[in-house]
Amino acid sequence: MYLRYLEELDGSGQHTASSDALATLCGTTPAQVRKDLSFFGSFGKRGLGYPVHELTVRLREILGLGQAWQVVIVGAGKIGSALAEYRGFRQRGFQVVGVYDKNPDKIGRPWGDAAVRDITELDHDIATQRVDIAVLAIPADDAQEIVDRVVQAGVRAILNFAPTQVHVPAHVAVKTVNMAMELEGLSFALTNRAD
Amino acid sequence: MYLRYLEELDGSGQHTASSDALATLCGTTPAQVRKDLSFFGSFGKRGLGYPVHELTVRLREILGLGQAWQVVIVGAGKIGSALAEYRGFRQRGFQVVGVYDKNPDKIGRPWGDAAVRDITELDHDIATQRVDIAVLAIPADDAQEIVDRVVQAGVRAILNFAPTQVHVPAHVAVKTVNMAMELEGLSFALTNRAD
Repeated sequence: MYLRYLEELDGSGQHTASSDALATLCGTTPAQVRKDLSFFGSFGKRGLGYPVHELTVRLREILGLGQAWQVVIVGAGKIGSALAEYRGFRQRGFQVVGVYDKNPDKIGRPWGDAAVRDITELDHDIATQRVDIAVLAIPADDAQEIVDRVVQAGVRAILNFAPTQVHVPAHVAVKTVNMAMELEGLSFALTNRAD
Repeated sequence: MYLRYLEELDGSGQHTASSDALATLCGTTPAQVRKDLSFFGSFGKRGLGYPVHELTVRLREILGLGQAWQVVIVGAGKIGSALAEYRGFRQRGFQVVGVYDKNPDKIGRPWGDAAVRDITELDHDIATQRVDIAVLAIPADDAQEIVDRVVQAGVRAILNFAPTQVHVPAHVAVKTVNMAMELEGLSFALTNRAD
């Protein structure tokens, strides 16, 4: 979140930002801002604030955003398609090197400059090129099997849209975007909130 | 998560489930299961386990999942489209009553049985029909303005896909699905994890 606002400030030509200003933007306290940013080095100067550009560059480095990450998408549906067209995806260095599906109607269909590939080719493809991240946009029932296969093939990070928990070894990072749980959270809030 | 696994067990005809079994399914401890489920009433019987169907029904009630929620989607792009076609969306009682966009090329295009409406009609539409939830699938720059408008018009829950924090009064629930942050989390993990 800090990076998001710092990029905005940097883009608008602002050279420094106080912890007060960052706190207001991020909806937190100046003390929290100072604490959080102190993890990344001593940037702030009392009375001067944070150097916006320098801190932006440092945060991008820490997040690994200068690097190019090779991504496969499993599940050639709307979610995968929305993600591939999401500007922020490319901005963060995520490059789609393959899209896979098990549905014969989808296999071979054009996808960007390439075509949707048969899921049976997934393991071989990952073993023969570098793949950093697998995006799972598939039903819950298929998720763990695919996770096991991509982890076995060497993938170290997974973005999971399947509405289920998946299990991975400790060296693999997983982020789950659980739409079902978000929807239930809203439903719960509407049901139980006093009017 | 409990509901998800209980529904599976219920669907496969299982009558009871032990806290041990639920803990294994959910990746937690039996003690945590007992603690969590005790919030909803005294369901478990020592030695007998939890009554699967009864607990499923109760959890659905608590989450408000028997109710029909009327939803507007702001932003007629791929995210809104993926969401509207997501089976879990209807299963949880979410019914899309309107889709809005500001892009003249999109306004009037078919969307399910209806058509994409002009964003300028949003406030009037919300004021004249019940709308429980607004889904924001729009750029960050437009998000707060739309939030202010739908809240003003009476919406009490927001599902935000815009990559920004939005501010709402205390009586409004917000869930943000921040894809940018998930991607950065994976990038960070790949950069900083020892091989």
